[in-house]
Formats: sequence, structure tokens, C-alpha cells
Amino acid sequence: MEPLTLHEDRYFDPQPAVREKARALYAETRDLPLVCPHGHVPPALLADDDPFPEPTALILEPDHYIYRMLYSQGVSMEALGIPPEGPAADGVQVEQDPREVWQLFGEHYYLFRGTPTGAWLDYEFSEVLGVDSTLTGESAQHVYDQITEKLDDPDFRPRALFDRFGIEVLTTTDPASSGLEHHRRIRDADWDGRVVPALRPDAAFALAAGGWEDEIERLREQTDREITDYDGFVKALEEQRAFFKKMGATSTDHAVVEPLTQRLSDRQASDLFDRALRGEATAEDQHAFQAHMLMEMARMSCEDGLVMQIHPGALRDHNASVYERFGPDSGADIPVPTEYTRNLRALLNAYGNHPNFGLVVFTLDESTYARELAPLAGHYPAMRLGPPWWFHDSIEGMKRYRRRTTETAGIYNTAGFNDDTRAFLSIPARHDLSRRIDANYLATLVARHQLSMSEAHEMAHALAVDLVRDTYRLDREKEGGG
Amino acid sequence: MEPLTLHEDRYFDPQPAVREKARALYAETRDLPLVCPHGHVPPALLADDDPFPEPTALILEPDHYIYRMLYSQGVSMEALGIPPEGPAADGVQVEQDPREVWQLFGEHYYLFRGTPTGAWLDYEFSEVLGVDSTLTGESAQHVYDQITEKLDDPDFRPRALFDRFGIEVLTTTDPASSGLEHHRRIRDADWDGRVVPALRPDAAFALAAGGWEDEIERLREQTDREITDYDGFVKALEEQRAFFKKMGATSTDHAVVEPLTQRLSDRQASDLFDRALRGEATAEDQHAFQAHMLMEMARMSCEDGLVMQIHPGALRDHNASVYERFGPDSGADIPVPTEYTRNLRALLNAYGNHPNFGLVVFTLDESTYARELAPLAGHYPAMRLGPPWWFHDSIEGMKRYRRRTTETAGIYNTAGFNDDTRAFLSIPARHDLSRRIDANYLATLVARHQLSMSEAHEMAHALAVDLVRDTYRLDREKEGGG
Amino acid sequence: MEPLTLHEDRYFDPQPAVREKARALYAETRDLPLVCPHGHVPPALLADDDPFPEPTALILEPDHYIYRMLYSQGVSMEALGIPPEGPAADGVQVEQDPREVWQLFGEHYYLFRGTPTGAWLDYEFSEVLGVDSTLTGESAQHVYDQITEKLDDPDFRPRALFDRFGIEVLTTTDPASSGLEHHRRIRDADWDGRVVPALRPDAAFALAAGGWEDEIERLREQTDREITDYDGFVKALEEQRAFFKKMGATSTDHAVVEPLTQRLSDRQASDLFDRALRGEATAEDQHAFQAHMLMEMARMSCEDGLVMQIHPGALRDHNASVYERFGPDSGADIPVPTEYTRNLRALLNAYGNHPNFGLVVFTLDESTYARELAPLAGHYPAMRLGPPWWFHDSIEGMKRYRRRTTETAGIYNTAGFNDDTRAFLSIPARHDLSRRIDANYLATLVARHQLSMSEAHEMAHALAVDLVRDTYRLDREKEGGG
Repeated sequence: MEPLTLHEDRYFDPQPAVREKARALYAETRDLPLVCPHGHVPPALLADDDPFPEPTALILEPDHYIYRMLYSQGVSMEALGIPPEGPAADGVQVEQDPREVWQLFGEHYYLFRGTPTGAWLDYEFSEVLGVDSTLTGESAQHVYDQITEKLDDPDFRPRALFDRFGIEVLTTTDPASSGLEHHRRIRDADWDGRVVPALRPDAAFALAAGGWEDEIERLREQTDREITDYDGFVKALEEQRAFFKKMGATSTDHAVVEPLTQRLSDRQASDLFDRALRGEATAEDQHAFQAHMLMEMARMSCEDGLVMQIHPGALRDHNASVYERFGPDSGADIPVPTEYTRNLRALLNAYGNHPNFGLVVFTLDESTYARELAPLAGHYPAMRLGPPWWFHDSIEGMKRYRRRTTETAGIYNTAGFNDDTRAFLSIPARHDLSRRIDANYLATLVARHQLSMSEAHEMAHALAVDLVRDTYRLDREKEGGG
Repeated sequence: MEPLTLHEDRYFDPQPAVREKARALYAETRDLPLVCPHGHVPPALLADDDPFPEPTALILEPDHYIYRMLYSQGVSMEALGIPPEGPAADGVQVEQDPREVWQLFGEHYYLFRGTPTGAWLDYEFSEVLGVDSTLTGESAQHVYDQITEKLDDPDFRPRALFDRFGIEVLTTTDPASSGLEHHRRIRDADWDGRVVPALRPDAAFALAAGGWEDEIERLREQTDREITDYDGFVKALEEQRAFFKKMGATSTDHAVVEPLTQRLSDRQASDLFDRALRGEATAEDQHAFQAHMLMEMARMSCEDGLVMQIHPGALRDHNASVYERFGPDSGADIPVPTEYTRNLRALLNAYGNHPNFGLVVFTLDESTYARELAPLAGHYPAMRLGPPWWFHDSIEGMKRYRRRTTETAGIYNTAGFNDDTRAFLSIPARHDLSRRIDANYLATLVARHQLSMSEAHEMAHALAVDLVRDTYRLDREKEGGG
Repeated sequence: MEPLTLHEDRYFDPQPAVREKARALYAETRDLPLVCPHGHVPPALLADDDPFPEPTALILEPDHYIYRMLYSQGVSMEALGIPPEGPAADGVQVEQDPREVWQLFGEHYYLFRGTPTGAWLDYEFSEVLGVDSTLTGESAQHVYDQITEKLDDPDFRPRALFDRFGIEVLTTTDPASSGLEHHRRIRDADWDGRVVPALRPDAAFALAAGGWEDEIERLREQTDREITDYDGFVKALEEQRAFFKKMGATSTDHAVVEPLTQRLSDRQASDLFDRALRGEATAEDQHAFQAHMLMEMARMSCEDGLVMQIHPGALRDHNASVYERFGPDSGADIPVPTEYTRNLRALLNAYGNHPNFGLVVFTLDESTYARELAPLAGHYPAMRLGPPWWFHDSIEGMKRYRRRTTETAGIYNTAGFNDDTRAFLSIPARHDLSRRIDANYLATLVARHQLSMSEAHEMAHALAVDLVRDTYRLDREKEGGG
């Protein structure tokens, strides 16, 4: 078995003139708090604070990056212990033993060489869980045992880890209809970790999708308000925004395939909503309604100050048979080319100059960094450019992002880092990687005499904590309720 | 206050094997003349040769890069001393004191860290104006005083600076209707600086735009020719091309959103023109007419030898409220994805093999460098690829350009550098940056044993002066009138 | 004359921490066999095994990269000895003396500085042909003499070179209607070089193209089967696939402008085919038929195990006058933006999870690497991402490819290298370049502490031979006939 050790200079350029500066810059940001303005950790994890069951459930289950890679190399979902849904499940053999799944994971761990998933997992193993060997087929059971032992320790419960990780605030992502019960329980608990919701109303805007009526029903129950027309719908949303804000929220989030923004007349919006209530809404209706509701959400943000996030450009559930058998988030979302200049124009024209509006725009289409997003963020006062997202939240992805956006927008029109993760243990790993790459980027500019070290120190601090706090209005004193 | 000094190795890679070669290559190009085939310096500046009024008017006013960044961070145009136009102006407080504007500029100067604007400004301050301190809020008034003192000196008048900068030729950009009065005055002056016009007929092709009739009227006055139909229009353009050529022009320039090229029949072109004269032209009419006129301009270039430039892909005046209040060129132009392979096909098929045709194509969409532009420039004899433009005229932008275009098109199908600036003082700063990055690029190839140093020296010279002189036919002996 | 020597560390980063590791990794792959799963070497070359006639025919004639660059700088095709076809040829002076053509080539050889073509040619001259001087106008005749002398030597016949190059297998590209006569002669010869065909049925799918009826006629003759309807056509294709497979083929290949995939009903497909037989097929018909036939080819691949390649995104014969005068493959193919996520969805949904299906997807649009292709290859078990293709098969192109695809798809979802060349002598040059760049890429990851050296060694071996053998099912024991 190979010993698992993380090199203290990992991810820095080997060039000594860069490396020594990167080291110095990173030394000042490594222990700063982790500010987490966007992610997918289930709030129940911190409301329940139960011990993690065992390594496979802890590491594999929440991580679609892992499934995706193993599936791409012919490992079936069933062999990974994931049961298919519905009639397709009949007679299928699903692996029940988590140790067997872990063994399979170990045997395929080499696939992650050179990937950020591999880097994050090595960090989780080494720095969080104290594993001493590189994961392979040979070491798999040994690693499993080592992790299992740790999970019995109360120091490895979710809240204890939250505190150990130095998380200043953790933002979850919650449907518009949520009653935020888990967040209530966290607030009521004898623990002062800050966990805040973010309102993501996508399901309520998807007029033509299967689950739309159910979401409207949940929204109706939650707000105790009849939602029989568009006006009632808008009022319910406004009410939920106020409720989320009272529960600490500082942001909303919106996932769309195309970031079209376009205001409809009230009459048009009402007609679309009525059509949906009758079950007659089409894909085109939904597209128009989503574009309109982004305008409405921006209007409300100007009023209530919740920062608006747009995450466009992922075609969800590309693989129909995987989707039908295993449901959403099974690793088959694929990006599409995305246009921002024309699509966001209506929204930015209407609200982009408003002093109370904050907008964070993300992309899965890196060709838009230098072409569209940096010029937009480098002009509109309301807009900040979100950090490299998903497939691009990686060593090379972060380098491309800084190289393509800084020269037009500077660093001060970017939104700082967010980890965007479902995998709780990966949070410190992701922030650490990001801080290392930012330190290395700034060190390169210093080594090229574009910056002084004192400027670079200020910028490293900004990239680690100041920009994200400012963009997401997450300074502690600004918190609403609680 | 921090001393302002430019490191002599700035922008070079820190790797010693690269840096020492970059230094040697740059040493041979740094003092070569500045050949400026495209830019936006007002010719009146050199016709009048008045002293510059004061630092804010000198540095900020012509530079929309500066406004853009400050505006993006919430600094209003009014606070920068820019008065809104029209009825919107009622009751607005506009800063009148240039020292106050300068102070605000100093306080926000940190925003330009890591940007080419910051690099150019530091050069202007240090190398051109002899400023001794980095601009900050603290140093702002001191810097203002230092610059003010210089501006009293006759050595800092426009023509003296032109000579000091070593400008071999400066090309301005002028509407098709221009009488080139400033150019006449420059020619008549007791000064031998070479300032030549370039004909940019965009306004005359924009059938559906507000100012079209006025531009036609100016063209009519200038040519003393009735322009009552399409034939007259074409004749007026031919006449103006001949006039510009006589005044030293070697090129035309064309800004379009989409670089569609497509010949109409004379009848179709006439119909569109007549419709425009009746004030009935639509956006589609204009689009078709522009595509046709690009064909016509290429035809004329084959005849008169004026090199044709196409600058496509900027959506102008994206921010409607800024445009309405402050007019065009207020920093809110945003690029759009741009397609060349199909759009330029008609033009390249008709004229791209013609021995007297020269075409320089620019882009704001870097994804086209390797995909479309290098393959096109690497095939058609008439076409050269223009240098990295606008948002991409930067350290990283220039690196991406060379890395993505050289391997397919070589360096000899590129057009050399142009500074494309409105800000007169930034001319030497921009050429210096470009020469440093080209030296560094070539040094990297030498360090990787792809080139010998003697090859790299020839190529550095080509990139600095030979290619631009050749592409734009700007060898001194070829000059037309004068 | 400058001596021609290739530096042993060429193409490696100069940074010592990277270079020494790159050297060590390359040392283990440089002498591994050359596995060539896709290319355009004419099989007649190895069937005939005639001596190469003289240097111009050997080096220039098969290499459209060379023509393209010289043409772009105003050198006419005629001056390069290429006769125009048809009536356009009347009265045109075509250079008849290959020495004169070679002289012109030498005088323009500087154009290839910094290009992969230059790197390959230098390798061919120095390593294969023992030339001692850099090619220039001055050295041209000397170089010509040196090569001529070598070509008299039996060691420089095609089969001898094939053996010397260490080619394990060479795949040619052959129309669906081919009788594979050259392949038969190679198999019957007293020589054990492995040369296998790949079936490329593009001409049979191009319903609206000029040569379609001729291709159907050839297919009819070859299969001795009436092709009077769609069913007969499909059966003929299946028969030819079986024949190719028997002759050693392991793959098919498909070039399309847009990689649309879309199943038609049998009735629709039959109607289109009938329309084509009547000579009435339109461009739209062809587009739909091609999209359908990609589905059919995938279906057959699931059955017969032939790996399917898709090479989309080149607009062929962009320059109409060059095409009309000199025919196809004259260097005027230009890439267009290409979309994969939606276009490949039907095919991947139907067959992408099939255990017997292998699909290799290529691109000329690098913006799709990180956005679409790595996410797709990193999910679908059937799909592998093809190596950097054509304009991107270069030092910087290969770096961009690895940097943009590895972090999402790993290296194990990529297909290894292929040389894709018509120029037989460039085969070892291209593999050598690729192995150097892969070694350098892995060395960079080791120097950044992302990989251990032992991991990097395994990966270097995988990139050089394992992945390509596995992806293309080219393990020797699997060979079909012979």
C-alpha cells in the first residue's frame, strides 16, 4: 500500500519564483473562515446531527462526480448499490454490501488521477479522516476500516466537523415552497453554527413539468394562501421570500437552460399561469414564463435585497434510460452553449443599474468568460461574475477563469468562491484548492511584476473572504432573524 | 505613498530560460518606430497642437476603459464629471472640479490591478509623465500636481509627444463623409509627422439608423454630388475613397454586429436604398444592405488597393439608460458570439484570391481564433488576421491569440499590432506591452527548442514593424498625396 | 547553411522540475510501437511497395498543410506543380520541374516557424531522411540531393519504413463500396505488416451530392446485390461491414458537417432513398438521411463490434474557385461551430449504454472540449473522446485538449493518439510529438504534486498505446481474418 500524503506545495507552479510567493500568499488565507454562499448540503444533516453511518454512505452516496466517472467506465449503478426505481427494478441485482461497493470504488480510484474529484477525495481521506494509504483495490478494506473507526468518534458528527472546518456560514438550497423545518431546528438547537437557506423557485416556474402542480400545492400549504391565479402566485412568492429572509437567507437561485429574460404584460403572465393550472401549458409557455419570472425575481430583489443567482446552461438528465431508472441528479447533466449578452439584456437594462440589486451569474460555457461575462460584470454595477462552476471548479478551470476575466472585469467584479457541493466532507477540500489556486494566480502576477506582494496579499484576502461576504451580503451583523 | 517604478522585466515569464531570451528579443524591438494603422485619436489633437488642459481631461476623458470599471463598482458618471444629455439632465449634480474627479479616480485605482488598463496607465504615469508615486487616494493630489506641471512644458504638446513616442505613422478613423479638414491642416503645418485617415463608412450603410439621412447629406455636401439613388451613392463612395487615398489613406474600416457578406443584385440594392431615402428602411433592410456593401467595398479595394478591415461582433450601447443619458461610447458595448466561416464565404470566394485585395479581420470572440480565423487566414491569400482586439488586447489575451493562431496560420498571416486607442498617451504603453508579450512568446518557443534565436529575432522584428507595414501597405515610399 | 539538429528536449517546458520528469516519462514511451487507428495513407503505397519517386512527390504532394500555407502567402497552385482540372486548365503554365517546386518550398519554409507542420517536417528530414541542413532557399537543392540519394536505397521503400517506424498496425480509410484490393494484396504479400481498412460510407449517405449514384453503383457491383430500395441499401452496408471486418477492420468513420443524430421511421428512410434514386433528393433530405444513418451505423456497431468514429464540423471546399480548379482536399476546408449535447442525444440515448458499442467523437471546435465532450465522455460508457484533430493536432492544441478534458473525463475516457495523416513519412514524427507533449503534461502534474511518478508512468503508457488499442479493439489477438 502506498502512503497517502498531501504535499504542502501541492497545486503550486514548480517555478521557484512563483512557488515561494504562492506559499506566502496561501499562508495568510489557509486558516481564514469558510464562507459558503451556495451549495447543496441537506440541512437535515445539521438539524439531526446524527453520526455518519459508514464510509460508502458518507463518501459515495452524495457525490454524483464519483458515480459519473465509474459509470463512464462500465460500472453499473446497481453494482454501486443504487437501486433502480419503478418497474425497471424488477429482478435487478443491487449490491447490498457497502464494503463491496467500497472495494469497487477502490479498484477504480485510478480513474480520478488528474481530476479535482481525486484531489478533493485525497484531502478528505488525509486531512479530514486521517486515512494513511492511497485508495486502491488493495488498500480498500484497510481504508474502509480506518474511516469506520473515525465515524464512531463524536468529533466526526456533522456539527463538530462544521465547527472544525471553520465554516462561518453555510447556505443551503431550498425550494420556494419549503417550510424550512430543518433550518428552524438548527436555530432552536444548542449550537451556534450559521446555516441559512436560499430560495430556489425553479419547480414553481416550470409550468409544463410533471411536478408543477405538486409544487404549487406545497406552496399553497406553506403560505396558507389560495393560489388560484398569477397574482396570488406572485404574492405567495413574495411572502416566502420574506420568510426565507427572516430565516437568514440573503439570496435566491435560479437554474434555467437558457438565461432568457423578458418581461410579459400582467395579462400575458396571467394567461400562461391559468393555462398551467388547467394542465395545458407547453414547453414554449414555460420558457416564456421562466424568462418573465426572472424579471419579477429581479424586481423583488431590488426591493428586499436578496441577491439573485442565475445558474444556466445545463441540459438535465441527458441520458433518458439512466434518468428513468435512477431519477434526477444521477450524473447525466450535460452543458449546452449559452448566450448572455442578448439574453440578459432586458434584466440588466431594467435592474442592472439599481443600487440595491445584486446579481451573480454563473456559466458552464467558458467561451463566455472573456467574450460576454467579464464585459457585462465589468460594466453593470449590480452584476458579479460567479466562480468557476461544476465541471470548471478545478485547477485548470480556475486558472482559465482568472486569466480570462481579470483583465476586463478585475477581481473586484467577481463573487469569491463557493463550493456548490452536496458532499459535506468536500467543503474544506474545495476551499483549500481554491485558495491555493488563487494564491498561485496572484503569485504569477507578482513574479511577472504586474503586482506588488502587498497588493497581492490584499487581493488574496479579498478572493478568500471579502468578496464573497460583500457579494452575498453575508456579513454577520446583517443577518435577519435568529 | 508607494514609489511608482516599472520593473525592466515586467510581463516576462519568471522562468530564467525564458526570461533571458525574452529580454534579448525585446531589446531589439523596444526602440523600433511605432506603426499605428488603426486607432481613434482625434486628428484635431495634432492639427491644433494645443497644450493638454489638465490631468483629468488628458487621462480620463478619452478612456472608456476607465469609466467602465469605475461605473461597474457603483461610481456614477456624474461623479466623474460627465454631464448627462437631454431632459434626463434636469437637476442632476455633475462634478465640476477635475481635482475631485481625479481624487475619486485615485481612490478606485486599485480596481485596475491585474488589468492592461492598469499596466498602460502606470506606463503613462511613469514613462511619459514622470510621476513618482503609485496612484491611490492618498497620492492622488500629488500625482495631479506632478502631471499638471508637465503639461505646461512645450515638450508635452501633442506633436512633440508624437515625435518623442517615435510614431512612424498614425492612422485615424474617419466617416465616409469627412472633408478631412484636420488632416489638411496637419499636412499644411510646419511639421512632418505622418497622420493618415481611414475611411469608415458605417454610418452611410446604416439605412435604418437615426442619423442615416444626416450622413447622406454630409456625403452629398462633401462630394458636391446629388445622391438621389444607389448609383449616385456608390459613385460618391468611390470618390471619397479616392480623396482619402490622396490624403494618405491606405485602408477602410467596417464595424458590423454580424460579418455577413452577400451580394444583392443592383436592382435589390437600389430598392433598399430608395426605401431608406423614403425613411422606410427596416432593420432587415439594413442588415442586407450592409452585407452587400461589404462586397462592394471589397470590390473597390481590389481596384484602389485600400486595405479593408472588418471589426465585427460588438453589440453597441447595451445599457439603454446609460446610452440615453450619456450617448454612445460610454462603455456599454458587449461582444456577441460571431461566426466567420459561413458569413465571410461570399466575400472570400469573390475576392479572397485577388492579388490586389488585402483584408484584415478582427474578432471579439476568441473561440474563433483556432476554429475559423486561423484556418481562413492560413488559406486565403488576401486575408490577414488582425491583432487581439479591445477586451483581448491584454497580456493573457495576446498569449491566447498567439497560442491559438500560430500553429495553423503561422505568424506571417497575422497583421502585426495596432493600438486602437482614443487615449493618445496610451500609444507607447500599448506598443511596449505588445512587444514584450511577443518577445516572451518567441522566447518560450526558443526555450522549448521550437525556434533558434536567430529565427526568433527575425520574427520579433516582423511582429513589431514588418507585418504591419506590409499588411497595411504603409511603407513610406508608397504614400499617395502630400 | 544552418545545420539541422533536433534538440533531445524539444517541446518540453524549460522549467527544470518539469523537464527532468518529462524526459523520464518520454524515455519509456519513445520506443513503444506506433498504433495507428485512423489515417489516410493510400493502401496502394504498401501494396505496391514501389520506391518513392523523388522528394517533391514524397513530401509535398500528399501534404495539404504545405499547400495551404504557401497558397495563403500568394504562391499559386500551378507554381507548386499542381495542374488545374477541366476547362480552367487551358493555357495555364504549370511548373513541371520538381526541383523548381522544391526550391519554391525551400524559399517559403520560414512560414512554418512555430507550426506543427514545421516540427513534423524537421523530424522527417532529420530523423527519417538524414538531411543535415535546415531547409531554406539557399539549402533547397542540397536537401533535395540528400533525399534523392536516400530514396534509391531499398531501406527507404514503404514497407521497410513501416517496419523501421515500428508501426504495430496502420488503419486506412476506405469507401463503403471498396473491394479492398490493395488490402488483399498486402495480406497476400510476403510481408507481415498489419494494414487494416476502416469503412467510411459518407459518399453513400450523401443523397444530394453529385457522386452519389456512382457510389451506389460501385456498392452494387461490389456486393453483387441489387440496391433498388432502402432495405437493399442497408443489407449491402451490413454485408460490406462484415467484409471489412473479415479484412481486419475494427472501425467505421463518419464525416458530417453537423453531428445530428435522429432516427427516421423505415417508411421515411425509404422515401428519402427512393427520392434520391429518382435524382430528386434535396440538401434537407440528405441532412435527415445522414442523421438517420448515423443511428443505423450505431445499431450495426452494437451488433458487429466495429467502433464508430464521428468527425464532424468541417465545411469542405470553402474556396469555390480553388475547388473548381483543383478538386477536393486542396486545403480549403474550414471548421464551423459544432454542437454535441443535443445533436448526439438520440444516438447516445439509444446506444450509449450498450456494452458492445464503442464510439469515438472528434471535434474541430475546441470550445466543446470542456463544455460538452468531456462531460459526455465522462458519463456514457460507450463514448471515448478522440484526440486533438487536424488544426488542433499541435503542441498547444494537445495542451489545451488535456487541460480541458482531463479534469472532467480523466484520461481513461480518451481514445489515445492517432496521426490522421496522408503523409506516410510524418507518422513517426506525429507520434513522437504527441508522446513528448503527453510526457510533458504528466510531468507538469507531477511537479505540481497532483500525481506520483509511478502513476505518471502508468498514464504515459496508457496514452501511448493502451488506450488506443483498447478503444479501437486493436489488440493483435482480436484480429479477424488473415
